[in-house]
Amino acid sequence: MEVDLIIRNATVATASDIIPDQDIVVKDERILCLGQGLSAIFKAAKEIDAEGAYVTPGGIDSHVHFDQPMMRTGDTFETGTRSAIAGGTTTILAFAQQRKTDMSLYPVVEDYHRRATGNAYCDYGFHLILAEPTTKILNEELPVLVKEQGITSVKLYMTYEPLKLVDRQILDVMMSTRALGMTTMVHAENSDMIDWITEKLEAKKMTDPYYHAVSRPNIAEDEATYRVISLSELMDIPILIVHMSSKIAASHVRKAQTRDLPIHAETCPHYLFLKSDRLRGEHFEGAKCVCSPPLREDQMDLDAMWQGLRNGTFTTFSSDHAATKFDHPQGKKAGLVDGIASFRKIPNGLPGVETRVPILFSGGVLKDKITIQKFVELTSSNPAKLYGLGKKGTIAPGFDADLVIWYPSGKMTPFPLSNDSLHHDIDYTPFEGMGFENWPRWTILRGAVVWDRDNGGLVGKKGDGQYLRRGRSTLSKPREVFVNEFRP
Amino acid sequence: MEVDLIIRNATVATASDIIPDQDIVVKDERILCLGQGLSAIFKAAKEIDAEGAYVTPGGIDSHVHFDQPMMRTGDTFETGTRSAIAGGTTTILAFAQQRKTDMSLYPVVEDYHRRATGNAYCDYGFHLILAEPTTKILNEELPVLVKEQGITSVKLYMTYEPLKLVDRQILDVMMSTRALGMTTMVHAENSDMIDWITEKLEAKKMTDPYYHAVSRPNIAEDEATYRVISLSELMDIPILIVHMSSKIAASHVRKAQTRDLPIHAETCPHYLFLKSDRLRGEHFEGAKCVCSPPLREDQMDLDAMWQGLRNGTFTTFSSDHAATKFDHPQGKKAGLVDGIASFRKIPNGLPGVETRVPILFSGGVLKDKITIQKFVELTSSNPAKLYGLGKKGTIAPGFDADLVIWYPSGKMTPFPLSNDSLHHDIDYTPFEGMGFENWPRWTILRGAVVWDRDNGGLVGKKGDGQYLRRGRSTLSKPREVFVNEFRP
Amino acid sequence: MEVDLIIRNATVATASDIIPDQDIVVKDERILCLGQGLSAIFKAAKEIDAEGAYVTPGGIDSHVHFDQPMMRTGDTFETGTRSAIAGGTTTILAFAQQRKTDMSLYPVVEDYHRRATGNAYCDYGFHLILAEPTTKILNEELPVLVKEQGITSVKLYMTYEPLKLVDRQILDVMMSTRALGMTTMVHAENSDMIDWITEKLEAKKMTDPYYHAVSRPNIAEDEATYRVISLSELMDIPILIVHMSSKIAASHVRKAQTRDLPIHAETCPHYLFLKSDRLRGEHFEGAKCVCSPPLREDQMDLDAMWQGLRNGTFTTFSSDHAATKFDHPQGKKAGLVDGIASFRKIPNGLPGVETRVPILFSGGVLKDKITIQKFVELTSSNPAKLYGLGKKGTIAPGFDADLVIWYPSGKMTPFPLSNDSLHHDIDYTPFEGMGFENWPRWTILRGAVVWDRDNGGLVGKKGDGQYLRRGRSTLSKPREVFVNEFRP
Amino acid sequence: MEVDLIIRNATVATASDIIPDQDIVVKDERILCLGQGLSAIFKAAKEIDAEGAYVTPGGIDSHVHFDQPMMRTGDTFETGTRSAIAGGTTTILAFAQQRKTDMSLYPVVEDYHRRATGNAYCDYGFHLILAEPTTKILNEELPVLVKEQGITSVKLYMTYEPLKLVDRQILDVMMSTRALGMTTMVHAENSDMIDWITEKLEAKKMTDPYYHAVSRPNIAEDEATYRVISLSELMDIPILIVHMSSKIAASHVRKAQTRDLPIHAETCPHYLFLKSDRLRGEHFEGAKCVCSPPLREDQMDLDAMWQGLRNGTFTTFSSDHAATKFDHPQGKKAGLVDGIASFRKIPNGLPGVETRVPILFSGGVLKDKITIQKFVELTSSNPAKLYGLGKKGTIAPGFDADLVIWYPSGKMTPFPLSNDSLHHDIDYTPFEGMGFENWPRWTILRGAVVWDRDNGGLVGKKGDGQYLRRGRSTLSKPREVFVNEFRP
Repeated sequence: MEVDLIIRNATVATASDIIPDQDIVVKDERILCLGQGLSAIFKAAKEIDAEGAYVTPGGIDSHVHFDQPMMRTGDTFETGTRSAIAGGTTTILAFAQQRKTDMSLYPVVEDYHRRATGNAYCDYGFHLILAEPTTKILNEELPVLVKEQGITSVKLYMTYEPLKLVDRQILDVMMSTRALGMTTMVHAENSDMIDWITEKLEAKKMTDPYYHAVSRPNIAEDEATYRVISLSELMDIPILIVHMSSKIAASHVRKAQTRDLPIHAETCPHYLFLKSDRLRGEHFEGAKCVCSPPLREDQMDLDAMWQGLRNGTFTTFSSDHAATKFDHPQGKKAGLVDGIASFRKIPNGLPGVETRVPILFSGGVLKDKITIQKFVELTSSNPAKLYGLGKKGTIAPGFDADLVIWYPSGKMTPFPLSNDSLHHDIDYTPFEGMGFENWPRWTILRGAVVWDRDNGGLVGKKGDGQYLRRGRSTLSKPREVFVNEFRP
Repeated sequence: MEVDLIIRNATVATASDIIPDQDIVVKDERILCLGQGLSAIFKAAKEIDAEGAYVTPGGIDSHVHFDQPMMRTGDTFETGTRSAIAGGTTTILAFAQQRKTDMSLYPVVEDYHRRATGNAYCDYGFHLILAEPTTKILNEELPVLVKEQGITSVKLYMTYEPLKLVDRQILDVMMSTRALGMTTMVHAENSDMIDWITEKLEAKKMTDPYYHAVSRPNIAEDEATYRVISLSELMDIPILIVHMSSKIAASHVRKAQTRDLPIHAETCPHYLFLKSDRLRGEHFEGAKCVCSPPLREDQMDLDAMWQGLRNGTFTTFSSDHAATKFDHPQGKKAGLVDGIASFRKIPNGLPGVETRVPILFSGGVLKDKITIQKFVELTSSNPAKLYGLGKKGTIAPGFDADLVIWYPSGKMTPFPLSNDSLHHDIDYTPFEGMGFENWPRWTILRGAVVWDRDNGGLVGKKGDGQYLRRGRSTLSKPREVFVNEFRP
Repeated sequence: MEVDLIIRNATVATASDIIPDQDIVVKDERILCLGQGLSAIFKAAKEIDAEGAYVTPGGIDSHVHFDQPMMRTGDTFETGTRSAIAGGTTTILAFAQQRKTDMSLYPVVEDYHRRATGNAYCDYGFHLILAEPTTKILNEELPVLVKEQGITSVKLYMTYEPLKLVDRQILDVMMSTRALGMTTMVHAENSDMIDWITEKLEAKKMTDPYYHAVSRPNIAEDEATYRVISLSELMDIPILIVHMSSKIAASHVRKAQTRDLPIHAETCPHYLFLKSDRLRGEHFEGAKCVCSPPLREDQMDLDAMWQGLRNGTFTTFSSDHAATKFDHPQGKKAGLVDGIASFRKIPNGLPGVETRVPILFSGGVLKDKITIQKFVELTSSNPAKLYGLGKKGTIAPGFDADLVIWYPSGKMTPFPLSNDSLHHDIDYTPFEGMGFENWPRWTILRGAVVWDRDNGGLVGKKGDGQYLRRGRSTLSKPREVFVNEFRP
Repeated sequence: MEVDLIIRNATVATASDIIPDQDIVVKDERILCLGQGLSAIFKAAKEIDAEGAYVTPGGIDSHVHFDQPMMRTGDTFETGTRSAIAGGTTTILAFAQQRKTDMSLYPVVEDYHRRATGNAYCDYGFHLILAEPTTKILNEELPVLVKEQGITSVKLYMTYEPLKLVDRQILDVMMSTRALGMTTMVHAENSDMIDWITEKLEAKKMTDPYYHAVSRPNIAEDEATYRVISLSELMDIPILIVHMSSKIAASHVRKAQTRDLPIHAETCPHYLFLKSDRLRGEHFEGAKCVCSPPLREDQMDLDAMWQGLRNGTFTTFSSDHAATKFDHPQGKKAGLVDGIASFRKIPNGLPGVETRVPILFSGGVLKDKITIQKFVELTSSNPAKLYGLGKKGTIAPGFDADLVIWYPSGKMTPFPLSNDSLHHDIDYTPFEGMGFENWPRWTILRGAVVWDRDNGGLVGKKGDGQYLRRGRSTLSKPREVFVNEFRP
């Protein structure tokens, strides 16, 4: 039988298994079959010899910010997804962000479609950011967006003035997302604590980038995490707490999971590898690492993030790619006015969509900190399940042929990361100089090679990526267990 | 030497010791000395033979609501303090309540002085309820009220529309109370949860008194308790969480204490003895037991309150006397409109200032649930220490001769409580019919018998009570331990 | 290409994925490939149409007792493995039991080989029970048994007079198993507590079967679990705590896992479905359910076992098939002497090797209590990984073609279980009468159908099963983290 | 009236109260009365002006080892009690130690009476160490010793070869002590862990004193503490865990107390102030600080001991005075054989009976780490209550006039401690050089000055001390709550 592609000699990794000596047969964008000695049976238009290296499902980065108003110098769908495929990510979920003044979500979604359509190098979908969850939006628009657009997740903020919701609004949203089977993502930091400290720091002229970390202490994440878990328990609704950074907050998630609550959590590369001393650099360099929650001071917190990856506290591992240029007056330098630093004015966020997958492979799997199966689960399988991407997230016949082929052991020369080698449109990476011992050799999107590191690098093109209509989460759902006789 | 009063043959109990065979010698309102055989040495104007019974320090009820606007049919300072002394309480701390429209506290305090002066049967002081903590109030007025009026405590609400503060306001208040060494009391329930549920219940016409308990689930107290402990930790400030009712919330206090945080807590008689089924009575009877937090459904919660009394989680045991008449259109019956119950309109709160001390003696000490020392600590010594009442709270020379003389074992006939026997101006007690095996035989206020149960009962009179200027708490203070380098 | 077997139209489940519409191609006992439309490409000696039903990896029961001296009326390797395949289990790990008088393990292992060789219907391996871990055994024999026999696990008892080891012996064993990379299984109950209570119960003539449960309270499992986790932490060694039954004990495992300790645990069907009231039956019926740890009284404990399955506390789910006949003087009736019950004399243990897989499928997956992936993980994938069975435990090309084909939804008539339908040599099942909504339709062992429920049932035969040499665990290993500078 | 002694101008401290301006009137060895201006009323043979300083109850050291066989160069009752009074301790509880070969306790107790009678400077009582709890001893002798000798406490060891009991023996003892209302003290360390590590360390020639600490890791205390709490819970019996040293072990006590279990605990001065680096000194100096549990490495553990004092985890604060001379071949130097150190041969224990009270006053109260009331509770009131010393432990009329008068603030010159100034018969103190800002100025034993620091120091004499018959604990007792229907 004629097929499109055969990858020979692969060590296939799924979220549960390592399957050596495989041939992966691809036809019509999907995996047709998996097995031993198949290249003798099928005739392929293209063959790739994996040389025994790991082949993993294409990365799914379920938390990236592209082309949002708050990051004026950040990546577009074009530059962002270009960066994604060069780092082994074949699907991204970006945000369609409502502003408080948007009284309907329809134009918002339409607008983001306009930004993305025809520009993406990889497949993509949208989460909705709800900044003003009116009754009309909750009752009328969300059902339509779920059904017609396959947008099955929302994100809420407990902090940031232009976005934050109070508890009651969160309950309103949860009521709707529960009914619609949507996944609710939450940025959990106590806004009042942060604002209050910020004001006091400013009064004392403590405004260097470093004070950004001081202004957002662990206890702000701790409290908000406990609170939103409580709201979730009251409403009997699954949530995902995004970008967790501190041990104490992660412990709330773990305890909730022990009690069977459908609480999910996510952490990001920077919370594994970078500490708050990175905010102290000279020449305003610290601004490059301003993000929220902030990088933490204590190695104990970083260690706890690793533990959480291993023990299942974290369901997903995302980049939270929320990039702005450093040396740009509307980028990070917006926080430098007349030579005076003002951490409050520095746009939040770090680039990372390209480095996310290789950093966990090289710094996690190869350092024996997590298994290859856990790597697959965190970077691909779980995001696919949690966000209802039915044909993504594993290597199995019938699934999309989204694949990353790594170098076999010893084949790639380790190198220190340089921003020059990255494909985003940002002038720095927080991981500059970090050593990598492996990197995606080939990235394959629905059967097509889009990244070939040793032969020209980027071979995919703008528009290869498709919009993804998503279904319900297969990871969790309401339990029909309530705190008392009240039923939401 | 001539003295005013000798109490012979007392078994004196303090918060730490049981001291049998004592003569208590009183002169000039204070205890002059304590010892054996003293009636042979001193000549007293009056002698009382305690017959070996326990003599305990006069009760200090640090949480009562008298003559506040929200309880239009409740007790005044006159009827409330009259009730207090008949139940062994010689000091009460009532609330001077700011309304959101009060731009200065001075007239508020003046007003409460006016209500109390000349009317009180027992000594009294004021806590301030801050409903609108303006900068002026925090920075200018509080220092004056501490210094000139000896008002060294405030109370904040996290719930109730007319009173509640958001986190940021709470931080503002804490900043001031920290600097002034004031004790900060907090009513901890998540307002948004409660309002949200209430609205849904009303939409479903679930408005019987019982749904009051449904509308305020344990998780609302749980969340708010965790939150205010977090705020306290951030600010490094001692707080007292008032009227706790649930196991999970109390566990947060306990864990905070384990970590050395200066967190105090209080529970009340109704959370020890009454369950939420009391809200189900016919003929709107359930309204009598509407209070917040509500009575709890699960015996586990009541047991946890007892455990908390024993193991030190609770610093104080107060009545939260917040009474309204039952059969009155502006009392509990305000919740019955045209025969339709509406739990939301029922004034919150229960009477209890008279029963608090005897209920814990009879139902706690005599049932072997707590020791007599713990009884003294909870009902008198700790409130005195926490709220800066230097000359109150124990039986020792130099301290005010505020005393309760109990019946010796077997001397009093056990009786079922009847509201007729109480001295408040309320037409019911939630403890109607409860059996009592002891009751204050004599109550003594600064050396004067004000209650003589076997000889006329009430012998004190209006105006006996004095206003108490209070000092700083001797129980706790900021630790100078902070969550990071930020200093409040 | 000619192959041995094709299973068409399968919904393949692995520990991570559900893969619909698969053809599974089998050649030379192994899965050759997996994919869509493969029956058009390969020519198979035999085809089975799965009709869209789930196909799961053959069950691996990692905890069965066959032909051990202490179960004189129990199953042999022949009857036990016969029962296994009829219930979808294609691999069992049985115990080769040292007696305290055995000064060498070699004859012990040889003896168990003799019992098993040529008798097994399914594949099998041995764990070693160490009852007398002499220096010679630990230093000389274990390395040989690991290397030459592929026996890579030991089991230790903290209870039972003829088997139990004291802490120091456990440490000695751990020192060796750590060096050899063996997995250490532990039966954790505090022996002294149990013996002491038993003696007191006997003195009071409380000897009915029910008192077996009274004699082994949760706290005995609780304490021993905490202790052996401590020993494991001291030695930095992975362990598996067998047959856990109580919430408190499971919570120790969970907390240890939170701290990254390599602690594994197992539970069994009877701890999910049966309570201690089953020990109360008339006519000595209670004896049928005597096992250790005992069935628990409180539903809370059973619920906690389900939670533990879901949240990852439990690594494996085994039968602990330790059967003895009921109506036999050397079986359960050994506990009935002259009509007087003596729980102490009742042989411990229940049959369950045949019911284990269907009970978790029907009572777990179909009741929405666990996912099909979790089912696969617990019944097959994890046992394979933990005990070093490299070619077992999943459905993937290159792995042994051990498969269970279930009935498609609605195809099988639900039935109440009857012992008559089971294939063990035991005269009862504790699950008599329990309803089943599915059951293995076909069981396939290395490509050969050995169970065909609708066509004769047992079609495999004695001797089909092979002995399995095992490798190291791929699930966990020492962390090289120690409690202080001491290195074991 | 004529009395024996008046102490004027005292600031009396009890476990709950600070009572300024007191005159303490003493007659016939007891406090007759307490009050203001009493020196004008009573005529005293002797008057002391406390000058406003604190007067606290005489210290009760409930854990000292005098004249026991295992400390051959240690203190006798004479030298030990002499040291006690010079440090403000007026009562000690020493051990009457059974050896495993003693088949009756009667001669043991008689022997210790012989050692103590006529030799003691302060009052004293005995705990029994049970090393071989035979049925005869438990059933016949203990009741007699309780009744006739007033010995109401036993101590058990979970470690040390010549003393240790296995769990079953501990249960046997608990059964008896429960029935007799005795308090059961336990030394909780896992013996097997320690022996096993010790053996390995010796094999590696790691035998310097420092390895003593390595051989007894926190986890040994952790495990044994959890175990003995479990045994206690099973038996529903109060216990006191002696000399606790680690945070994790203390957390078990705290959690047990949270659950209302009658678990008490004790810590000692060296666990507050000394770390394990003290074991590293040159010239075998480290041997001076060899004790069990060992000094801990991590400041976190020391901090946790302070927290435990504050939050109530610890009921008592004792010296565990278990002294041996340093420079003596049968003292600490027994661990130095032919110049080779062997930590296993170093006699365990430190001197501390004289420093215990001043170290907590100076290093705790004066450093604002604990309140004066907590100081009194820990050093005197609680030991009196826990061990049934009815007339000791507080300053109140009717109680023994055992008193410590401190220097008023600023009156005493701070000094560094020197062993020369101590009164034990030991050639070192582990607290050499530690600064003291206060010290008992006078110690008064039943009304008689026995220590007058500024006028000759020791003025009491051998034989002043009396043997104390003790009653039941008034702090706790069985709760009649059991783990299941079994009743011990």
